[in-house]
Amino acid sequence: MNLDAADAVSIAVAVREGKVKAVEVTQAALQRIAARDRELNCFTTVTADAALADAEKIDHEVKQGKNFGLLAGVPFAVKNLFDVAGITTLAGAKINAENSPATQDATAVARLKQAGGILVGALNMDEYAYGFVTENSHYGATHNPHDLNRVAGGSSGGSAAAVAAGLVPLTLGSDTNGSIRVPAALCGVFGFKPTYGRLSRAGVALFSSSFDHIGPFARSVRDIATVFDVLQGEDERDPVCTKRPPVETRHGVSLQNIDGIRIAIAGDYFCKGANLEALAAVQKVADALHVTEYVSIPEAHRARAAAFVITACEGANLHLEKLRQRPQDFDPATRDRFLAGALIPSHWYMQAQRFRSWFRDRVREVFEKVDIIIAPTTPISAPLIGQQTMILDGEEILVRPHLGLFTQPLSFIGLPVLSVPIQRTNALPLGVQLIAAPYHEALILQVASVLETKGIISAFIVP
Amino acid sequence: MNLDAADAVSIAVAVREGKVKAVEVTQAALQRIAARDRELNCFTTVTADAALADAEKIDHEVKQGKNFGLLAGVPFAVKNLFDVAGITTLAGAKINAENSPATQDATAVARLKQAGGILVGALNMDEYAYGFVTENSHYGATHNPHDLNRVAGGSSGGSAAAVAAGLVPLTLGSDTNGSIRVPAALCGVFGFKPTYGRLSRAGVALFSSSFDHIGPFARSVRDIATVFDVLQGEDERDPVCTKRPPVETRHGVSLQNIDGIRIAIAGDYFCKGANLEALAAVQKVADALHVTEYVSIPEAHRARAAAFVITACEGANLHLEKLRQRPQDFDPATRDRFLAGALIPSHWYMQAQRFRSWFRDRVREVFEKVDIIIAPTTPISAPLIGQQTMILDGEEILVRPHLGLFTQPLSFIGLPVLSVPIQRTNALPLGVQLIAAPYHEALILQVASVLETKGIISAFIVP
Repeated sequence: MNLDAADAVSIAVAVREGKVKAVEVTQAALQRIAARDRELNCFTTVTADAALADAEKIDHEVKQGKNFGLLAGVPFAVKNLFDVAGITTLAGAKINAENSPATQDATAVARLKQAGGILVGALNMDEYAYGFVTENSHYGATHNPHDLNRVAGGSSGGSAAAVAAGLVPLTLGSDTNGSIRVPAALCGVFGFKPTYGRLSRAGVALFSSSFDHIGPFARSVRDIATVFDVLQGEDERDPVCTKRPPVETRHGVSLQNIDGIRIAIAGDYFCKGANLEALAAVQKVADALHVTEYVSIPEAHRARAAAFVITACEGANLHLEKLRQRPQDFDPATRDRFLAGALIPSHWYMQAQRFRSWFRDRVREVFEKVDIIIAPTTPISAPLIGQQTMILDGEEILVRPHLGLFTQPLSFIGLPVLSVPIQRTNALPLGVQLIAAPYHEALILQVASVLETKGIISAFIVP
Repeated sequence: MNLDAADAVSIAVAVREGKVKAVEVTQAALQRIAARDRELNCFTTVTADAALADAEKIDHEVKQGKNFGLLAGVPFAVKNLFDVAGITTLAGAKINAENSPATQDATAVARLKQAGGILVGALNMDEYAYGFVTENSHYGATHNPHDLNRVAGGSSGGSAAAVAAGLVPLTLGSDTNGSIRVPAALCGVFGFKPTYGRLSRAGVALFSSSFDHIGPFARSVRDIATVFDVLQGEDERDPVCTKRPPVETRHGVSLQNIDGIRIAIAGDYFCKGANLEALAAVQKVADALHVTEYVSIPEAHRARAAAFVITACEGANLHLEKLRQRPQDFDPATRDRFLAGALIPSHWYMQAQRFRSWFRDRVREVFEKVDIIIAPTTPISAPLIGQQTMILDGEEILVRPHLGLFTQPLSFIGLPVLSVPIQRTNALPLGVQLIAAPYHEALILQVASVLETKGIISAFIVP
């Protein structure tokens, strides 16, 4: 089997069936990391010894017929804001490097390990998850595997690039305003942000608590579905992740029959401000699904503005003590925004929260008429490392804040979204967002599965 | 029966038994209002015609053996921030006088009416509930029935004074930082603020949503218990007032046997900054209950500071549009605080909220060791109308903000609190707070009932 490009499920099947050893799979991953990560800069820590020990344990269990883990022997890595016992949780910050190692794995890490996953390391990110490019001034930029001169996107840049480069088939990231979806799109892999509160954030360094989600990066829809299944469920360590009322099942809709699902393209705001290839990617998905209807998400531009305000305020509050004591040790890109955030009048923050309730009600109304909404993930494909501006709609605008143009209004109210990689020839990757109402992740996965079967979407692995 | 001083339950019993007619009770209340409210200024609206019509209906039902309402024929009135169908909800503001009349009763008003209560009018308050004195620049000050030169307390001053003056046996008010408890104490009546979220606020003009409670003023513990019973219960019109897990029953504790209840005096913060008679009032309650233990509520001064910050921010946001358009139409006392609140940096607001979580956890620990905590309601008895400063602990400090010294840290985390009127001779009224853990209102009422039976507490009605 080609371990560079195999998805997690096929690796786990092979390991469970004894066709390949977890140790071999892990060694191969470690070798790829050793060979390629110097130029990519995805990893900030590689846990080779622990990984090999874990893999041996899995092999032993398999041999004894004891291990049936859905991710048996699958190497994975996590954004360095997830706690890993024995490793210091950096969250992309130089300041955090002085902290003691974590004493306990984050719940998500523990669950992947419990399912047989082999943790091989921690991944680069924007400082404190505040960015869309992963150009980290302390730990360097992560390079896009498709063009090393370009950014991987952020803030979970290391997580996306590691999957796209074939280093590991599976990673975890976090998404506050688009930090899973943006790098997934720019690197050409799947990136999933389930409903707010659905996956435990226990042991994850937060950025803006009322927005922060965690989620997986992977190479196939079934991998995303499998990891989602492994990760979900109540966690008493996370007060936000509690038991939910069961979501009603949709009768007559199966994995390959999506006739009962009402799908529409996001109009207005989501059609403006994207370049032509981003719109063409959306059109390609719509055509494959025979979708011609448009739906309007009202005041999406305000949702983005409000998300900016709340993020800046909440993030600033979290880090203010350190900002006061040692501002010189922050990444300049995050420092200035945090300081500005701390000075935003409380009225702005509260008005943004008030708007949020209003917006949530409006979007709830939209989802009475439609089940899945399609929108671009990013307005452009990966910009160059260091690139400051871009031209959109005839205007020169800043790159960094605008990469989240289409992701921010959605995480703002915690909607589940999957960014799917669009099949393109001789072009940089681009993603399309599949968006559903809260707790309707299953619908997203069904639609994605159909698109994958039709060959419209698939991960681009650069071996 | 003496309708000036009878409590609501005895009136309802007499009405249900046909010993007195609801119409007679209502007429007597309206006559007292007509005779005395000119000097007291409790009422901003008197709904005489509707009240008499409602009373006739009750009498008709009683005659037919149909009305078993717990409050049959009991006249009541509500702070003018409760919606009453057909009347404009003033919330103490001149600006609101331009609004259309409410089209529906607030849930609390509707429930009291459904139990047979007769609404006779709406009561004076501080503008937008932002004050502790009810010196309203638009609608005048409410006078303390015990000394007309003194304030009734606020912001529910009209509600407390109307009960203390014998105009009606029952009123409703709201409490954000002490607005039920402070006027109850200064007017010598019972004032109850149940757990945050326990009573519906639907149809109530809010001030600072995460603090606002509603609750009753009455002349006896059984009245408070009865009204609490009538008002409580889920309300789909109020998202904050939802179904709660049942509170565990305490075995072996009955209404007159409180041996199983662990009671302590609030120490530290709650013993400082009160004048001697306020501390003596607490001591009198403690002695009657044979309580000698003290308990510390840590960082209560910070809880008060944080409550100030959040109140100012949330209140400012609610009224900012009007503050921008027509500041001259605000009460000067509220305007300046709202404007300042709008400019508070978001960091302060967020830090206050962060502290709130911490404080809630600490107080939860305190309630593992104790069931009921006793504290003064106000540091002093009623100040003069217009009085700006007072001397406390040898320092001259402002009166208005400090009346809430002992109430603010408790509403900050939504604890249920009853202010009970202490029996004193030839002295102005004073109140003591009985405080419990969330949802343990029953314990408070049991302890209050014992104190009432012992003659330690009782409402002071000034006929």
